[in-house]
Amino acid sequence: MAISVPPGDSRRRIQPLDALASPRFTQVATFARLPHDRSLADVDAAFLGIPFDDAATYRSGARFGPSAIREQSRLLRPYNMSVDIYPFEVFNVVDYGDVNVVPGSFEATAEAVEQELDTLLAARVLPLVAGGDHSVALPMLRSLTKAHGRPVHLVHFDSHFDFWDSYWGQRYTHGTWLRRAWEEKLLGHVLQVGIRGPQFTKDDFQYAKENKFHVLPMRKLEHNPATLVARALDRIPTAEPLYLSWDIDVVDPAFAMGTGTPEVGGLTSREALHCLDTLVGHNLVGAEVVEVAPLYDGPGAITALLAANLLYEALSVMAKNRERGIPAFGS
Amino acid sequence: MAISVPPGDSRRRIQPLDALASPRFTQVATFARLPHDRSLADVDAAFLGIPFDDAATYRSGARFGPSAIREQSRLLRPYNMSVDIYPFEVFNVVDYGDVNVVPGSFEATAEAVEQELDTLLAARVLPLVAGGDHSVALPMLRSLTKAHGRPVHLVHFDSHFDFWDSYWGQRYTHGTWLRRAWEEKLLGHVLQVGIRGPQFTKDDFQYAKENKFHVLPMRKLEHNPATLVARALDRIPTAEPLYLSWDIDVVDPAFAMGTGTPEVGGLTSREALHCLDTLVGHNLVGAEVVEVAPLYDGPGAITALLAANLLYEALSVMAKNRERGIPAFGS
Amino acid sequence: MAISVPPGDSRRRIQPLDALASPRFTQVATFARLPHDRSLADVDAAFLGIPFDDAATYRSGARFGPSAIREQSRLLRPYNMSVDIYPFEVFNVVDYGDVNVVPGSFEATAEAVEQELDTLLAARVLPLVAGGDHSVALPMLRSLTKAHGRPVHLVHFDSHFDFWDSYWGQRYTHGTWLRRAWEEKLLGHVLQVGIRGPQFTKDDFQYAKENKFHVLPMRKLEHNPATLVARALDRIPTAEPLYLSWDIDVVDPAFAMGTGTPEVGGLTSREALHCLDTLVGHNLVGAEVVEVAPLYDGPGAITALLAANLLYEALSVMAKNRERGIPAFGS
Amino acid sequence: MAISVPPGDSRRRIQPLDALASPRFTQVATFARLPHDRSLADVDAAFLGIPFDDAATYRSGARFGPSAIREQSRLLRPYNMSVDIYPFEVFNVVDYGDVNVVPGSFEATAEAVEQELDTLLAARVLPLVAGGDHSVALPMLRSLTKAHGRPVHLVHFDSHFDFWDSYWGQRYTHGTWLRRAWEEKLLGHVLQVGIRGPQFTKDDFQYAKENKFHVLPMRKLEHNPATLVARALDRIPTAEPLYLSWDIDVVDPAFAMGTGTPEVGGLTSREALHCLDTLVGHNLVGAEVVEVAPLYDGPGAITALLAANLLYEALSVMAKNRERGIPAFGS
Amino acid sequence: MAISVPPGDSRRRIQPLDALASPRFTQVATFARLPHDRSLADVDAAFLGIPFDDAATYRSGARFGPSAIREQSRLLRPYNMSVDIYPFEVFNVVDYGDVNVVPGSFEATAEAVEQELDTLLAARVLPLVAGGDHSVALPMLRSLTKAHGRPVHLVHFDSHFDFWDSYWGQRYTHGTWLRRAWEEKLLGHVLQVGIRGPQFTKDDFQYAKENKFHVLPMRKLEHNPATLVARALDRIPTAEPLYLSWDIDVVDPAFAMGTGTPEVGGLTSREALHCLDTLVGHNLVGAEVVEVAPLYDGPGAITALLAANLLYEALSVMAKNRERGIPAFGS
Amino acid sequence: MAISVPPGDSRRRIQPLDALASPRFTQVATFARLPHDRSLADVDAAFLGIPFDDAATYRSGARFGPSAIREQSRLLRPYNMSVDIYPFEVFNVVDYGDVNVVPGSFEATAEAVEQELDTLLAARVLPLVAGGDHSVALPMLRSLTKAHGRPVHLVHFDSHFDFWDSYWGQRYTHGTWLRRAWEEKLLGHVLQVGIRGPQFTKDDFQYAKENKFHVLPMRKLEHNPATLVARALDRIPTAEPLYLSWDIDVVDPAFAMGTGTPEVGGLTSREALHCLDTLVGHNLVGAEVVEVAPLYDGPGAITALLAANLLYEALSVMAKNRERGIPAFGS
Repeated sequence: MAISVPPGDSRRRIQPLDALASPRFTQVATFARLPHDRSLADVDAAFLGIPFDDAATYRSGARFGPSAIREQSRLLRPYNMSVDIYPFEVFNVVDYGDVNVVPGSFEATAEAVEQELDTLLAARVLPLVAGGDHSVALPMLRSLTKAHGRPVHLVHFDSHFDFWDSYWGQRYTHGTWLRRAWEEKLLGHVLQVGIRGPQFTKDDFQYAKENKFHVLPMRKLEHNPATLVARALDRIPTAEPLYLSWDIDVVDPAFAMGTGTPEVGGLTSREALHCLDTLVGHNLVGAEVVEVAPLYDGPGAITALLAANLLYEALSVMAKNRERGIPAFGS
Repeated sequence: MAISVPPGDSRRRIQPLDALASPRFTQVATFARLPHDRSLADVDAAFLGIPFDDAATYRSGARFGPSAIREQSRLLRPYNMSVDIYPFEVFNVVDYGDVNVVPGSFEATAEAVEQELDTLLAARVLPLVAGGDHSVALPMLRSLTKAHGRPVHLVHFDSHFDFWDSYWGQRYTHGTWLRRAWEEKLLGHVLQVGIRGPQFTKDDFQYAKENKFHVLPMRKLEHNPATLVARALDRIPTAEPLYLSWDIDVVDPAFAMGTGTPEVGGLTSREALHCLDTLVGHNLVGAEVVEVAPLYDGPGAITALLAANLLYEALSVMAKNRERGIPAFGS
Repeated sequence: MAISVPPGDSRRRIQPLDALASPRFTQVATFARLPHDRSLADVDAAFLGIPFDDAATYRSGARFGPSAIREQSRLLRPYNMSVDIYPFEVFNVVDYGDVNVVPGSFEATAEAVEQELDTLLAARVLPLVAGGDHSVALPMLRSLTKAHGRPVHLVHFDSHFDFWDSYWGQRYTHGTWLRRAWEEKLLGHVLQVGIRGPQFTKDDFQYAKENKFHVLPMRKLEHNPATLVARALDRIPTAEPLYLSWDIDVVDPAFAMGTGTPEVGGLTSREALHCLDTLVGHNLVGAEVVEVAPLYDGPGAITALLAANLLYEALSVMAKNRERGIPAFGS
Repeated sequence: MAISVPPGDSRRRIQPLDALASPRFTQVATFARLPHDRSLADVDAAFLGIPFDDAATYRSGARFGPSAIREQSRLLRPYNMSVDIYPFEVFNVVDYGDVNVVPGSFEATAEAVEQELDTLLAARVLPLVAGGDHSVALPMLRSLTKAHGRPVHLVHFDSHFDFWDSYWGQRYTHGTWLRRAWEEKLLGHVLQVGIRGPQFTKDDFQYAKENKFHVLPMRKLEHNPATLVARALDRIPTAEPLYLSWDIDVVDPAFAMGTGTPEVGGLTSREALHCLDTLVGHNLVGAEVVEVAPLYDGPGAITALLAANLLYEALSVMAKNRERGIPAFGS
Repeated sequence: MAISVPPGDSRRRIQPLDALASPRFTQVATFARLPHDRSLADVDAAFLGIPFDDAATYRSGARFGPSAIREQSRLLRPYNMSVDIYPFEVFNVVDYGDVNVVPGSFEATAEAVEQELDTLLAARVLPLVAGGDHSVALPMLRSLTKAHGRPVHLVHFDSHFDFWDSYWGQRYTHGTWLRRAWEEKLLGHVLQVGIRGPQFTKDDFQYAKENKFHVLPMRKLEHNPATLVARALDRIPTAEPLYLSWDIDVVDPAFAMGTGTPEVGGLTSREALHCLDTLVGHNLVGAEVVEVAPLYDGPGAITALLAANLLYEALSVMAKNRERGIPAFGS
Repeated sequence: MAISVPPGDSRRRIQPLDALASPRFTQVATFARLPHDRSLADVDAAFLGIPFDDAATYRSGARFGPSAIREQSRLLRPYNMSVDIYPFEVFNVVDYGDVNVVPGSFEATAEAVEQELDTLLAARVLPLVAGGDHSVALPMLRSLTKAHGRPVHLVHFDSHFDFWDSYWGQRYTHGTWLRRAWEEKLLGHVLQVGIRGPQFTKDDFQYAKENKFHVLPMRKLEHNPATLVARALDRIPTAEPLYLSWDIDVVDPAFAMGTGTPEVGGLTSREALHCLDTLVGHNLVGAEVVEVAPLYDGPGAITALLAANLLYEALSVMAKNRERGIPAFGS
């Protein structure tokens, strides 16, 4: 393999297992066949699993999301042709393992997530997160705003608004995290892409409007969603920290049946990848793909495979920015 | 939930279970978590299952269609954003249960279906039907023409023509119902959308032509099927009764693998929903979604989920018309 | 069907749907095709679902247990040949629906369960409970001891002891309910059947011994488990209230793969049914079958089918007792 | 492979494909990889599929039984060690294909079955039948009694009695065939093995008693079922024609989940094979394995595999008899 | 069925089983329900399975591809409406069975494939091949170039380049066959359609460029792929022999999850069929559909169904050419 | 957890992740949640995956066996109650990863296996191997005989003899390894347990007899297989090295459907575990569980779960011996 190695440095070099030496179905399953490593020395980005799903309101099972994504990420390869980058050449990336979540307690889990994130961000490591249900976004955002010293902008791919106030008296669920984050002033601009399907109430659109969330419902994305997303992103200053929160259910169930609250009529996987690539040039400081529930996937595990590719694509965007000299953590 | 309740009337108000009080995975599975109710007082529309599949010519299993659709309809919510309507505010809707079909006898089943429909229509209740195989459309149409005093127009989404004359000497199958309905003079205009795949014979196109059926084969719908459907619907007088017969196999197997005679190369779920919304303004007097065979669905049950959404969309169209003062059953 | 109807009384008569009039795959799925009814007038026993699974420590998904058990209970028929009883002739039985559990909160759920049970028991209705994870046993036992004015005896079929003290700081999980129940003095004799598989620690056997729990580990049950269970039951006074808590994982995964913490090497379904029948003559005041996680079942849904049969068997035992004049709720 | 070839004769020799030349996953799937052949010259036994399932009262899908059994029979090999026979050395066996059943019409199908069987039996070919639902046994028995000039004895493995009078006014279903056969005087001795599970009514036992059917319910077979079956078979004169009707649901769903009316608590596959071997010495003139519904099988297809083995075992019994000089069709 | 039969000739006429006489779920599964026939007299085209998968680098299981494609091809019917042809009227087609592959040895298998192909081509029979993994293309091309006396042009639908040099020291794998074929000078023009996903290295694009392969990566095909493919085909002289090599993974996993190396973001089935139809007018001398791995398909088997349709479409293209007088094998 | 820690030593202590701190569905999947570690310092036993399946003669897919076993081994806990041992207290155990197998080449793979094993055995580490197909046993035995300086005794659980001479000219397959091992004089006593099902030829029994293999066919094990196995083991000197080769297909497909060559009528999982425990006291120097093909497992993954438990049981036997002072590697 004739990859041109970047000029040597004293840093250790971390590489995925080479599928030409070690077939890709062999060895312990880590993200992209990267080393599982808890030290953060010389690490630029880290895969982190947050297998918590007790805040799901319908089908559970996203607790096995990180495990399934690791397994399917065996197919990832070194060169990303759509972004034109070798992400593992630009970055040292590791599989950092999972947060030790506390089943049955969102509060204890959120604390554990925030603490883990604080550690990563203190080491200036970019987080690539695999959920778990969407509630894990809240502690992620808490930590990110601390680390970056300001609210982060949010691009949120989802078929649901997720800013409901509470469910059954529970204020922290996978359907309420965005309202909590907004109330906690963790967010700058909010762009919501892919909203569709039966809603609880029309008032949600009002809430979005009042709070100046930019909403791109699915019906507006019938043709060329990537173009519309790119245009919407124009409103977000490229230098400021931007967080990507991708709920797998924004993708149509044909492409992503392995999820807990599927809504028919969504993005194709082709459109999804294309949308993600429009983030190149923005200061992406982290990304999460959530709500992968492997038990609802078929034997081909194509939802987990898509999630692995989305994380790889996000990583590639970040690597492309680094290559261009955009410093995710400021100078 | 801040739904503005319409001005009180003396009628009883029927509502789905509130997912904020009773999580959507709880309680007996009825369509859209509506009450299972056999009285028709103050009822505007009713879900009715017809779990008959002995007229299927290939894979059977649609007898479990109504059950699977009920289960997956747990995800439906009160507000339809694409039609902009709260259907359960406009209509009182119930789950009327299933017809007591007679396995092994189309004739006895057809009689039972017709009788049940006669009862519903006499009470001016709009039928939302879940098959079962497509043969159930015949007794549906028999009853509808009686109730409306005239042939009804038909918009028929399907990958197959369904006007074959007989199979193995059987004149009543899921592939012959449309010819029977035509022979029985139950139909006005016939619009067929989505025809594709290998055919028995080219003569079918001739038959459609001779009888002035309007055919939109899949190949013509490559781009913007909803626009073409809307244009085709223009030929049907909006005030006259129109029946929707939706065979789930018009949708591509990627989105609807849970069916008995799948044909590759069909509509996406996005296009399907969009097509259905073009019916707003037409006097939709009933709708059926047939041929959902849950055993061929994956664990995500996305075919049944799509079917539930299609029925919800049809209901929303009918509710929108009601809101606009179009009386389905005449004045 | 020549069932001899017991001498008429003024009570209403509740019967399952007749499969000879209404094929068993038709109609809304309720337990044993009984009416879904929330009034308790003239009701002797009630099926109750408790779809809570946030206290599971490994695989979740038991929240869909009640729904799956209802669906598979379509196959139940009126006469139980192993107990020689027509349970629905002796008892009026209804499907009471599910407890409105509160996902993410054991405490709120436990309160809801206890309240629902109190209502049932106040009406002298025998509970037939479908979980949900095993944590639901705790509020069940709280209510039962109140209703019966004394601790109840417990026969506990399970591959796990379930008296761990806590998990991740959580004191209420599906692995700790029995210790909590013991600490709360809700229990008389405790018989544990089927313990096997890798354990956290040998100390558990010590705990069982200290507290005089009668333990029949799987290895002792290699041959004739029913005989050994019958003998062990001899130590429990037949007149005193006995509760049956059946974790489906006591059955071998070949027969019950649809569960959250499977342990290989368990009971066969034949042995399971046989064991259950040995309860005839004991004052069974309620029964639960828990930990059915349908997503881990195959397409044949045989775990849910087994669970439905176990509940039917428990009901038959209670009906047999009633026939013999044993008053479950005292005289 | 050192199989000793029997002394040459002028007959053609029919052999399964050799798995050492043609791997067993290759080539068109026929039963046991035998030639698909419609000529009956020099043929001793023939596999015949009857893919009719419109007489099923619950889950359908047995129409794909023959296809699945063919696929899984790829694993069969030449030597049967439990019966000690090379069946394909003793017999020329072919895959005769399927009856052209008529979906939706039991009557037309029954006629087609009877006609096909008449042809086979006229050529003195032993039938090995794969259902389809159990209703196909009726035309089988009609043809057999004609061919053998007398009622045949029946050994019937099933969890159900199958002598109900009618369902929904239908006299010909998979639950009524035995009563019809009895009424039509097609049967000599009837031995029923494996009855269990919830019954419609206790009267069925009375019917069995009145008509002197020998019933071995599952509960009596707890230990050593083969011994009890062997003893029961003693009452049937060994020289008289005996037909084997095996409903796959007599086997426990753990071993045979791929069926339409599963009953928990059945035979293991080990016991099943053992029971079948006790037929050696009886004049077995044909055998059927019915009710295999592949959609309810898991990906391992173990139900179809078991069915293939049961047919192979029945064939081996017949071959063993031939070897011993017992002439199935009289001298 | 009113198919106009072409003027009689002395040739035998080969037809698929008529689904109106023999329901399509009956009889031994052969491709398109055609006769399984090893004689080549009067045969124009033949389905051939090559169930070899030991050259797969990730998920295996394509050895069951031919069997699954046969089973799902039961749904094919006589008239192809998109190409406007009755292929089985123009051609006599048979199911020739499978190559007796040698598991574990590519070399021995390649020899067997080449020999089988030589026989077919000597008889001027057009091959319709079902893989197996993609390595089988190499012996196919060896035989084709011999038969046609020149390198054949190649249109290659795939998400992968397949011209890697070796894997783990193995020079013959499903990822290297194209380089081997190029080195062996078996190919004229090479058109590669659908390349996408993470790549080993950017150098692959260089290799394609240096060797003048025409590459249409997926990203260029976002809209109207068929139009772009048609335009690219313009460069290939229509009279010269063209081979179609279709790797099912060029289609998106939503439509074709049953494959060994899935890549998200691919063609829809609609686009795939459309692309294939653009081959009309080109001298298609054979076609293969490879890498169908049925175990990764869902219960609907939609990948195998798509593969069957692609082969039917390729056959139709060839029949259309024949109708137009284009002689595949030269005059 | 009150585990009594053995008296401290200077060795590092290796422990599985504590499920009470880190829920068992979290973190990278390694065997028994042990550290993945390639250094062998202070290591007593090591899990090693050999994901090679190109020597399978029927269904492939065992290449994903090690991955699936790791995933399901999450449920293992510290104390083995049937052997009465804490294996991870007695031994330091690691997950050593997988051999870098060479797909398509048995020879290259065998070399890699042997080399890896040589390294482990040189460090006096006991191997716990997960296949892969059964062919991997041959290089295992080559290495073991070298390390122990003598042929090892073999206890071989399998439904097949595995001493066929060759398949399709291939001398190294999963059905020939035992003959090769015997020819290479790698074996002492050979005990074969569980042989059953259709055989190629009766001659196999002759081969076994001639070579004095001790064969316990399934039919002899109908009752109390463990007792018979224990008795058979008596012939093997307890001090001499004994290797356990467990083909998962010795277990009945109901308990272990996830395998490539299933045979109905096998051991139950209860019997399997019991048989394994009879090895206590023998000098077990290594163990392998092979032929787990996860794609044929259901969603409950019970075959992989059983395999994980069998390896845990073998480890426990070895630990028990160590506790008793039996030195696996001699003194």
